[in-house]
Amino acid sequence: MRAVEIIEKKRDGDELSPEEIRFFVEGFTRGEIPDYQAAAFLMAVYFRGMTPRETADLTLAMAYSGRVLDLHDIAPVVVDKHSTGGVGDKVSLVVVPLVAAAGLPVGKMSGRGLSFTGGTIDKLESIRGFRVELTVEEFREQLRRVGAVLCGQSADLAPADGKFYALRDVTGTVPSIPLIAASIMSKKIAAGADAIVLDVKVGNGAFMKTLEDARALAQRMVDIGSALGRRVVAVISDMNQPLGEAVGNALEVKEAIATLRSDGPRDFREHCLTIAAYMLYLGGRAGSVAEGRRLAEETLSSGAAWEKFRALVAAQGGEVEQIEEPERLPRARLIREIPAPADGYIVEMRAYEVGMAAVALGAGRTKKGEPIDPAVGILVHRKVGDPVRRGEPLFTVHANAEERLAEAQAWLSRAVRIQEAPVPPLPHVYETIPAGIG
Amino acid sequence: MRAVEIIEKKRDGDELSPEEIRFFVEGFTRGEIPDYQAAAFLMAVYFRGMTPRETADLTLAMAYSGRVLDLHDIAPVVVDKHSTGGVGDKVSLVVVPLVAAAGLPVGKMSGRGLSFTGGTIDKLESIRGFRVELTVEEFREQLRRVGAVLCGQSADLAPADGKFYALRDVTGTVPSIPLIAASIMSKKIAAGADAIVLDVKVGNGAFMKTLEDARALAQRMVDIGSALGRRVVAVISDMNQPLGEAVGNALEVKEAIATLRSDGPRDFREHCLTIAAYMLYLGGRAGSVAEGRRLAEETLSSGAAWEKFRALVAAQGGEVEQIEEPERLPRARLIREIPAPADGYIVEMRAYEVGMAAVALGAGRTKKGEPIDPAVGILVHRKVGDPVRRGEPLFTVHANAEERLAEAQAWLSRAVRIQEAPVPPLPHVYETIPAGIG
Repeated sequence: MRAVEIIEKKRDGDELSPEEIRFFVEGFTRGEIPDYQAAAFLMAVYFRGMTPRETADLTLAMAYSGRVLDLHDIAPVVVDKHSTGGVGDKVSLVVVPLVAAAGLPVGKMSGRGLSFTGGTIDKLESIRGFRVELTVEEFREQLRRVGAVLCGQSADLAPADGKFYALRDVTGTVPSIPLIAASIMSKKIAAGADAIVLDVKVGNGAFMKTLEDARALAQRMVDIGSALGRRVVAVISDMNQPLGEAVGNALEVKEAIATLRSDGPRDFREHCLTIAAYMLYLGGRAGSVAEGRRLAEETLSSGAAWEKFRALVAAQGGEVEQIEEPERLPRARLIREIPAPADGYIVEMRAYEVGMAAVALGAGRTKKGEPIDPAVGILVHRKVGDPVRRGEPLFTVHANAEERLAEAQAWLSRAVRIQEAPVPPLPHVYETIPAGIG
Repeated sequence: MRAVEIIEKKRDGDELSPEEIRFFVEGFTRGEIPDYQAAAFLMAVYFRGMTPRETADLTLAMAYSGRVLDLHDIAPVVVDKHSTGGVGDKVSLVVVPLVAAAGLPVGKMSGRGLSFTGGTIDKLESIRGFRVELTVEEFREQLRRVGAVLCGQSADLAPADGKFYALRDVTGTVPSIPLIAASIMSKKIAAGADAIVLDVKVGNGAFMKTLEDARALAQRMVDIGSALGRRVVAVISDMNQPLGEAVGNALEVKEAIATLRSDGPRDFREHCLTIAAYMLYLGGRAGSVAEGRRLAEETLSSGAAWEKFRALVAAQGGEVEQIEEPERLPRARLIREIPAPADGYIVEMRAYEVGMAAVALGAGRTKKGEPIDPAVGILVHRKVGDPVRRGEPLFTVHANAEERLAEAQAWLSRAVRIQEAPVPPLPHVYETIPAGIG
């Protein structure tokens, strides 16, 4: 087998065999197939796509390019979740301890944020001392002892994915449904998941801008799950406006804490309960999604989820006092309210622009490896459909520098549109794939 | 400007600006844009193509990636030719001295052969002592003094082309009309050509298998010429069967010598006169193509072309005795005739299979840098439309090893098809672009 022939076959639109896909992924991972051939291959996949069978084989080859965890000595059914990324998405911070407190161990590996989307482990690093980098042994030990882990992706798992992603990022081959699907699913499979709840975001603040694209990605990942014997549900939810109120690392941790302690924004709480319900159902802790939902609500209300979060933070070296008294989390020097410019109803509260405002403040990265400021961010006080009066606060901006605050304000002014006539609120969940599960 | 944005723009089918193309080509040539980004770019071009304007800009950027010759102190109009490559194509060996002898200096840089096509400089190396590698200064000096040069491509000229080609070869991006056109034309422009005759081959023994593809490539190169102020004519000629009788390096040199000394196969002689006629017309030595044709015939018949070839060989260090007595050129040990298996008419004499037979004998390369055997090759005694009787020789194979001879025979048996009913001969030239020139 020769790499160039595999590239040509894909270029010409023919279906690659499982052996050809494995040969390419293994050769690339070992450095025997050079980056330039992988780049040409990826661009050919961008144009020609992949059949569901090819995508499943690609996923498997990437998953097995490194160590694959077997966690069945800890949990009979290993459940995981993944979000395709959005603005204000701090769902894992609530859902992981919640599902764990309901009796289903969850060890979740997450990424860092890039561009307008935040990353779970960046958020957790707002807590002093919190260690996001665990060895696989530490991960297993904590999962066994605490039942909940939130850490960074281990470099041992699916190394092909990391290598492919770095290349896709600089060769214009990120936006390809089969490549995105295989990337996400390979990491979950390497991390030992039997069941996966996919939180697929759609809207201006997500990678998938249209429901059609989000549905295609969700379906592809569900198909990979079927082909590889995993139970997978995809929840397609709105990302045209931020999720919850807080955008920015410490602010989001505070909002997650508030939610775990039983208040917090209604849309965010609702979203967490939805995702948790599917996880509890797929993990066999609930006989239906509805039962999972009731169990999730009880676990949240009882304070058990909050206790689990405290235990998780303590286990990973985080200062528990800081989360018990969240005002001790990093705080920005400049706090400024942005008032509504007119009376009316919110027609748009664009997640993309709010996310870019957060990046401007220093809460996110424009390129990999950049440091971020945990303290800065934005609180969003109004959502689509809400009435507002001129002068009432739309946003509270937390900044550490005047010029960055000014830049954020410029983004935020483009995020909002107000009109006189009332508009309905945005839907929360558009659909689930497969439909009517549980 | 960022390379990844240029890749994405091409990927999305937008037209690149001249600045973007220049940025990419210059960055790649200097090693600032890595191979993997260039590979993704080339694959995007493969799928999206290029507009005529983009292709002209790419050509110009590649031509000006290194030294660009100005030969106007030697020739008022600098004429060049290029063949897209075929089997038995030894046209330059005749045409360059012929046009030079007719009063138009021609310095031609050529490539080496690869796969089923031969290369002019490999053929010339059959002549003992012949130096194919000249410095630019030697090239200029010989062009001034002798009026004719046949040498290898200088690495100083269009270095971007060499770099791009090496990458295309291993990334499945060779068969792209704009990339092929820009590659050919950039070298000609860097070599200082004002006027170019393109010998575009079509058929099973050419890179372009269909007239449609050959026409598209020819038209693209003619358009590049127009955009860049060069006079360009493309002659689309047949390569379904070998050109002339000889295939293999020393055998082809012998056939060129025979043609220069005024016999030689009719189809080959005819082809040389056609190409020479266009060169003489474009170069201003003839007022029409017909006049160019008459001048070419006279120059060939008078022996002046042969004299110019002798002078060229002498100037480049070749042993003139060897070309004066061509039996002194390298000879193979095993010479075997292959008889016709039946009476009838030749329906197919496939150039591809004959070319592969020559490769099997060692006359060509399967990969770059492989040594070749100058002595071996094939003489083709019948062409499509010719009658043949069972037992009459179809081929004479010149080999240096029995097992290679057997392999060549297997290829040759697949090259020929004989039927009882007569068939017309294959056309020689299909069309010229632009049509009706001169």
